[in-house]
Amino acid sequence: MNFRPLHLPLSGVLIVLAVVMALPALADGLADSAEWRAFLFSSLITVFIAGLLYFSRADARARFTLRHCYLFTVLCWVLMPLLSALPFYFSNPDLSFTDSIFEAVSGLSTTGATVMTDLERLPPGILIWRALLQWVGGMGVVVLAISMMPVLKAGGMQLFRLESSETSDKTTPRIRNVCLGAAAVYLTLSFLCMALYRVQGMSLFDASIHAMTTLSTGGFSTKNSSFAAFHDLSVMWTACLFMVLGSVPFSVFFITPGKPPHRRFFGDRQIRAFLGFLCFIIVGCAAATYLRPGEEDFFYDLTLSAFNIISVVTTTGYACGDYTEWGAFAPLFFFFLTFVGGCSGSTAGGVKIFRFQVLFLLFSRQLGKLASPSRVFVQTINGRKLTEETGNSVMMYVAVLIMSFTALSILLGMTGLDVLSAFSGAATALSNVGPGIGDVIGPTGNFATLPDSAKWLLSLGMILGRLEYITALALLDAAFWRN
Amino acid sequence: MNFRPLHLPLSGVLIVLAVVMALPALADGLADSAEWRAFLFSSLITVFIAGLLYFSRADARARFTLRHCYLFTVLCWVLMPLLSALPFYFSNPDLSFTDSIFEAVSGLSTTGATVMTDLERLPPGILIWRALLQWVGGMGVVVLAISMMPVLKAGGMQLFRLESSETSDKTTPRIRNVCLGAAAVYLTLSFLCMALYRVQGMSLFDASIHAMTTLSTGGFSTKNSSFAAFHDLSVMWTACLFMVLGSVPFSVFFITPGKPPHRRFFGDRQIRAFLGFLCFIIVGCAAATYLRPGEEDFFYDLTLSAFNIISVVTTTGYACGDYTEWGAFAPLFFFFLTFVGGCSGSTAGGVKIFRFQVLFLLFSRQLGKLASPSRVFVQTINGRKLTEETGNSVMMYVAVLIMSFTALSILLGMTGLDVLSAFSGAATALSNVGPGIGDVIGPTGNFATLPDSAKWLLSLGMILGRLEYITALALLDAAFWRN
Repeated sequence: MNFRPLHLPLSGVLIVLAVVMALPALADGLADSAEWRAFLFSSLITVFIAGLLYFSRADARARFTLRHCYLFTVLCWVLMPLLSALPFYFSNPDLSFTDSIFEAVSGLSTTGATVMTDLERLPPGILIWRALLQWVGGMGVVVLAISMMPVLKAGGMQLFRLESSETSDKTTPRIRNVCLGAAAVYLTLSFLCMALYRVQGMSLFDASIHAMTTLSTGGFSTKNSSFAAFHDLSVMWTACLFMVLGSVPFSVFFITPGKPPHRRFFGDRQIRAFLGFLCFIIVGCAAATYLRPGEEDFFYDLTLSAFNIISVVTTTGYACGDYTEWGAFAPLFFFFLTFVGGCSGSTAGGVKIFRFQVLFLLFSRQLGKLASPSRVFVQTINGRKLTEETGNSVMMYVAVLIMSFTALSILLGMTGLDVLSAFSGAATALSNVGPGIGDVIGPTGNFATLPDSAKWLLSLGMILGRLEYITALALLDAAFWRN
Repeated sequence: MNFRPLHLPLSGVLIVLAVVMALPALADGLADSAEWRAFLFSSLITVFIAGLLYFSRADARARFTLRHCYLFTVLCWVLMPLLSALPFYFSNPDLSFTDSIFEAVSGLSTTGATVMTDLERLPPGILIWRALLQWVGGMGVVVLAISMMPVLKAGGMQLFRLESSETSDKTTPRIRNVCLGAAAVYLTLSFLCMALYRVQGMSLFDASIHAMTTLSTGGFSTKNSSFAAFHDLSVMWTACLFMVLGSVPFSVFFITPGKPPHRRFFGDRQIRAFLGFLCFIIVGCAAATYLRPGEEDFFYDLTLSAFNIISVVTTTGYACGDYTEWGAFAPLFFFFLTFVGGCSGSTAGGVKIFRFQVLFLLFSRQLGKLASPSRVFVQTINGRKLTEETGNSVMMYVAVLIMSFTALSILLGMTGLDVLSAFSGAATALSNVGPGIGDVIGPTGNFATLPDSAKWLLSLGMILGRLEYITALALLDAAFWRN
């Protein structure tokens, strides 16, 4: 296999990374913080590697095949965290190499699990870098979902192919336009979110950082107690709004002639199911919390419910208080919510709503066939026919998710984690949520105390989850490497 | 829908139940125990209901359709536990109606979870009745797996259809012969097991009871501490042997002309994978246990490993000590083992080996198609072509299992169970294993302390798992009831 066609796109990605890395250097320089050297040095290393790749690139005639797509996607998610970890490692002598990698993977995969224990004493550059990682990672995932995943058929993503024919010459410009549109939407929403946070009383610094980690459904904060530090219900509702907006397909924000924007938004079956599901469980959970003795303020309970549930379902991972202490069934409830995820084509992780919709259609088809085996089913999802291939692909996603979850939680158990931490650690990593359940890695806990082996396993889980499994697992197939 | 064609087979099943119910009455009568009245009374009620059904039956011309198959299967597993609970309820004033139902469901589904707290003080009739329930339940499941499940296409069981054509006139006698053969094998193995237990020092009473609950992979015992009471490694190895024999397809024991029995046994791919898997994890687990400081006797560790792992994987549920205290990862390890199960066509529950094999084939097909989308795959399993339909059916089984597990554990959490008990309670009920994990329902625990609502939920889970989900869920489909 010829790796040369990968060099040019990889060097492009690394140059973007190097430029983004220079921003915290600027901030630290202005704040008279000594960490600017770490960022500049890391940025130069990244530029150097990008240069090596660029000057050893293939000529224009080398073909970029489907297999290069896989390899490019996986390499991006391995190379980027490695280089993004450098500023953490260089700037903070307390942070081990493992911790730096964990934090970088958690950032780029928009997971939001952290090993940093006292955020409020960190220099601004590091806080900006964590937010930038999530913001860039979120954008990267949206681009991936539009351009690569449908071609790679990652867990049924072929449903979201832009053109019906893969070989069409018009595909590439069309994909580029959609990606640029999504980027514009992402940028606009981020600014809006920042402005609202600022108006509602956050400092400009906090507002910028939280806007970046809200829209990317990442969840890194500048405060040790996350959103509990702001004591403001209106800020939480703003966060809810933008976490949800970060979890819907960005393409629905594009202006289509002849179709009013709200019809486009609420006409999308995936979004409707997503919002319906959220409303249902938020109101249910708020009611259950309100009915406990001593609770008087329903609006407060509703806000906390909405904020924490939206944070977990959209795979953001902000926290406001320890929601796992809301009652006996709260840990179980949030454990299963961890897997849900947002919509496809957004920054959210998890299984995602359209896969549940596909599974529901397949299930009703199967039930119907049991009673009348000869019945013919034609099922559509979002206006497209649900093919056998797509159905298989979604079911295989579920099977691989279970295998990964099983393997990861057993391995985490072997590193010495207790049962609950192993279970919820595996779940939260694979779904890119952030906090787990229990005393150690729960919403008020931290991943710093875990053994190094567990951190490496969780990092692997985060990447695997972000790449929707199949993209990464294809590389394990011997046939893949055969010429 | 006409229910009349169901009356005759149901009355037949109930007559068998009434006869079996008379056996403990005899034992209690001989032992001068007053409980014989409870059994005789319950038996008479059962005969009465059977009589009602018989005399209101349809004439011979009424057609027994596919939908009657579903209904018959589900009704059997609802009616039988209801009536089997009567002797528990009548004989023991301490046992509530809920407890009686739970114990009966746990018996008939060969689960082996118990709410009886002091087994050694119970009258012989009750102990015999518990064992008989499992023994009859085990036979029932084998008959179901041979005759009904392949026709009902329960989770890929169509792979084990005896004839290729459903409408063939020769199917019914063929199925009847295989069922009779399986019953003969079951009886023979039970006698062999009893004889070996007796020779190895058990009393005739204990040997008979344990033989019945070993072969049926049920797990009810006469001792509070289960097999730990016998302090004998050779007895444990006998149990291992017969638990494994109870978990392989009974049809492999039939004598086929021209094929030596061992070739038939070890030639079966499902059995080979099952034995390979068991050996691998038993040796691994024994080694891990032996390497702990202070351990000196490898054979002892190997025996305990083998006994407890085989007990969980074959879904028997005997225990010898608390294996969940073998180390940090032991609870996780045994939690996932709970789902594995034995082979199809046996008394074992769980997901079963052939489904893992089908999933593996589908997975490698999917991986292969990613790299070369045009490749054509022809895959066989046990000499049969793996069709699209079978694959879908198996994947749907997995999806429904996850849904059931999710719903059941959340509901159990709502009844007030702690996270670990809810998780492992749901798993152990759906897989028909018996003990769960944790202090409450673990191997040394008991289900008696659970709230009534949890017992009903678990009973439902045991029936659902035993019917392989789809059989029961078909009844939920509106189309099923339409004429």
